[in-house]
Amino acid sequence: MAATFAEVRANGPLVQCITNTVVTNFTANALLAAGAAPAMVDIVGEAGDFARVAGGVLVNLGTPTPEQRTAAREAVAAAGEAGTPWVLDPVAVGALQVRTELAAELVEKHPAAVRGNASEILVLAGTGAGGRGVESTDTPEAARAGAEELARRTGAVVAVSGERDLITDGETTVLVSGGDALLTLVTGAGCALGALVTAFVAGRGGHSVLTAVTAAHVAYGLAAERAAEEADGPGSFAVALLDALHNLRQDDVAAGARVEVLEPAE
Amino acid sequence: MAATFAEVRANGPLVQCITNTVVTNFTANALLAAGAAPAMVDIVGEAGDFARVAGGVLVNLGTPTPEQRTAAREAVAAAGEAGTPWVLDPVAVGALQVRTELAAELVEKHPAAVRGNASEILVLAGTGAGGRGVESTDTPEAARAGAEELARRTGAVVAVSGERDLITDGETTVLVSGGDALLTLVTGAGCALGALVTAFVAGRGGHSVLTAVTAAHVAYGLAAERAAEEADGPGSFAVALLDALHNLRQDDVAAGARVEVLEPAE
Amino acid sequence: MAATFAEVRANGPLVQCITNTVVTNFTANALLAAGAAPAMVDIVGEAGDFARVAGGVLVNLGTPTPEQRTAAREAVAAAGEAGTPWVLDPVAVGALQVRTELAAELVEKHPAAVRGNASEILVLAGTGAGGRGVESTDTPEAARAGAEELARRTGAVVAVSGERDLITDGETTVLVSGGDALLTLVTGAGCALGALVTAFVAGRGGHSVLTAVTAAHVAYGLAAERAAEEADGPGSFAVALLDALHNLRQDDVAAGARVEVLEPAE
Repeated sequence: MAATFAEVRANGPLVQCITNTVVTNFTANALLAAGAAPAMVDIVGEAGDFARVAGGVLVNLGTPTPEQRTAAREAVAAAGEAGTPWVLDPVAVGALQVRTELAAELVEKHPAAVRGNASEILVLAGTGAGGRGVESTDTPEAARAGAEELARRTGAVVAVSGERDLITDGETTVLVSGGDALLTLVTGAGCALGALVTAFVAGRGGHSVLTAVTAAHVAYGLAAERAAEEADGPGSFAVALLDALHNLRQDDVAAGARVEVLEPAE
Repeated sequence: MAATFAEVRANGPLVQCITNTVVTNFTANALLAAGAAPAMVDIVGEAGDFARVAGGVLVNLGTPTPEQRTAAREAVAAAGEAGTPWVLDPVAVGALQVRTELAAELVEKHPAAVRGNASEILVLAGTGAGGRGVESTDTPEAARAGAEELARRTGAVVAVSGERDLITDGETTVLVSGGDALLTLVTGAGCALGALVTAFVAGRGGHSVLTAVTAAHVAYGLAAERAAEEADGPGSFAVALLDALHNLRQDDVAAGARVEVLEPAE
Repeated sequence: MAATFAEVRANGPLVQCITNTVVTNFTANALLAAGAAPAMVDIVGEAGDFARVAGGVLVNLGTPTPEQRTAAREAVAAAGEAGTPWVLDPVAVGALQVRTELAAELVEKHPAAVRGNASEILVLAGTGAGGRGVESTDTPEAARAGAEELARRTGAVVAVSGERDLITDGETTVLVSGGDALLTLVTGAGCALGALVTAFVAGRGGHSVLTAVTAAHVAYGLAAERAAEEADGPGSFAVALLDALHNLRQDDVAAGARVEVLEPAE
């Protein structure tokens, strides 16, 4: 974990984000705080070119306008050709038709990782109906079988966010403890985590995607715990979270990581 | 007031927002801080479906792209069919042609409430020419007759924001005192209030729309006063406002509400 | 410098912004903190009308959707007819085709000022290939000749942001010291400076554009230095920067300005 964290800091990966209008500012600031270089390039005619040179691409479906949908397809195709790893964040799939269809199409295009809450992951796995907008009505542990199946089918590392985060490559499945309930009161806290996942995959050096995705969750959870200690509410928490991401050190990650490898399922 | 506030907290209403790109993040965070569940669903093909299941819908015309205009019409039509209450925030109508025409169309589609500054409300009432962009050049008190007429004509509760806020259902008109001048230095402070109005209407239980809209203004004003005590300027004020909204309790609302019922106009 | 700063505060210029979705909130808040009145009017059918009445117009190419591209052309044409000064911020031109073509077109339409990093300015000057997304790979000092040539060719004051900021009207060239490295860890810190440049040009009274652009950089740098003293990281820095912009006084600018007029180049 800690070595991967250090590698990302040293590399300063260039992360292209095609993400929703609600969270684009917070996402970019979270990436900067974590030592990455964000570039919110989501215009048709530019998204593909940039995906060829970026270190990683995030495709987040929170507010998928027609322009963004075309740009996402362009970026994913170019990333595939260029070998750029990309990450899918299927915000609120299930109930909402446009993004659900797009997510079903994109998840088959070989994302390096997929990050969502349990309801969203179960929809992609084909075994769930979705939650209440961006809220999950399931727990990560309950989504284990679906997440593992989705990982095996697509080749992606699948991360399910919740009170504990479940992460799997279809073979190995881990649970990450950490974070704070205040994360649920900051819009885009999950979306920013999807961006950090992209940064860690992009800048992971010789580490596995599973390790990179896990390290991103560990680092984010530790930063959230520190931020919660100083916060008087969700406003000051969001500010302190950016500070904590910036101030987090390799030793903190080494000392603070709480990762449990689960026994194989039957 | 206080009972309505408690009802909203207990219900955690799901609030769909079709709002402008400038304020979408702050609006979502304000809703979360107030105990509501925001969903910024403004895509054609999704906005209508979501309006059928949401507790309330906000339509804010701050940056009305063609996509958002179509999505707003779709959401308003679906809300009407499903009986979902919706709120119109006619940002900067008057001088700007596209949104002025759209606002004139939508205000006739039975919003539960309309919230704006005095210049915006007078434009909708048909007796004003608009202000200077998002700034009002009139006072809420000066907009009383226009607001009451607009309320009677449309059936909406009409709220006029200013140093004091005037709220009317066309029969009963109240003035709410509270807030702080720093609100005028935070972009989207008015837009976030429009979202809170939607949350309070959506989660009001058995209370009237007039009571719900008034309670939203009271709560926001009290939170702003607390935030101003801690702020060193508009940056820290906006952060503290989110904290204060989160930390506000029913007793605070009961003790702090300053609402004056006006004598009937001649 | 200080007199220009006071003039802007007294005038409270109305600044229209056509800017990118990542930074629109922070930009509007920075303008409010600096005493200006922001209006993010970027819709086709409205952008031109508003440009006729605004004090100044910012055209920032950070996320140039088709709607924004048309709106930018509409606003620039109207500004030209009405004599409204406008400012071009050519975010990430060079590598990205859509914005690079648009910037090349717009820069010939008589902007009052152009603000960018060294890589962006060199692309417009015709002597550079661009940086890494929004990051510059050149220094302002290295861009001097290109900036001066661009200023002479277009008639615009050209500002090159970096560790020190280089500002030129093609005849006189100055270097402004100030700011803090934390600015590079806040998304939109450069974009907000472009908006302040617009506000200072719009509200400059009888001062020259060169003086106005320089004063904007001085004020922003001083505010950043104050903010850095209080910050624990990039999150709290961004908040403190808004507070510091709001609290900055004419005397602070008079006492703190560090502007060096360069010897003429051979």
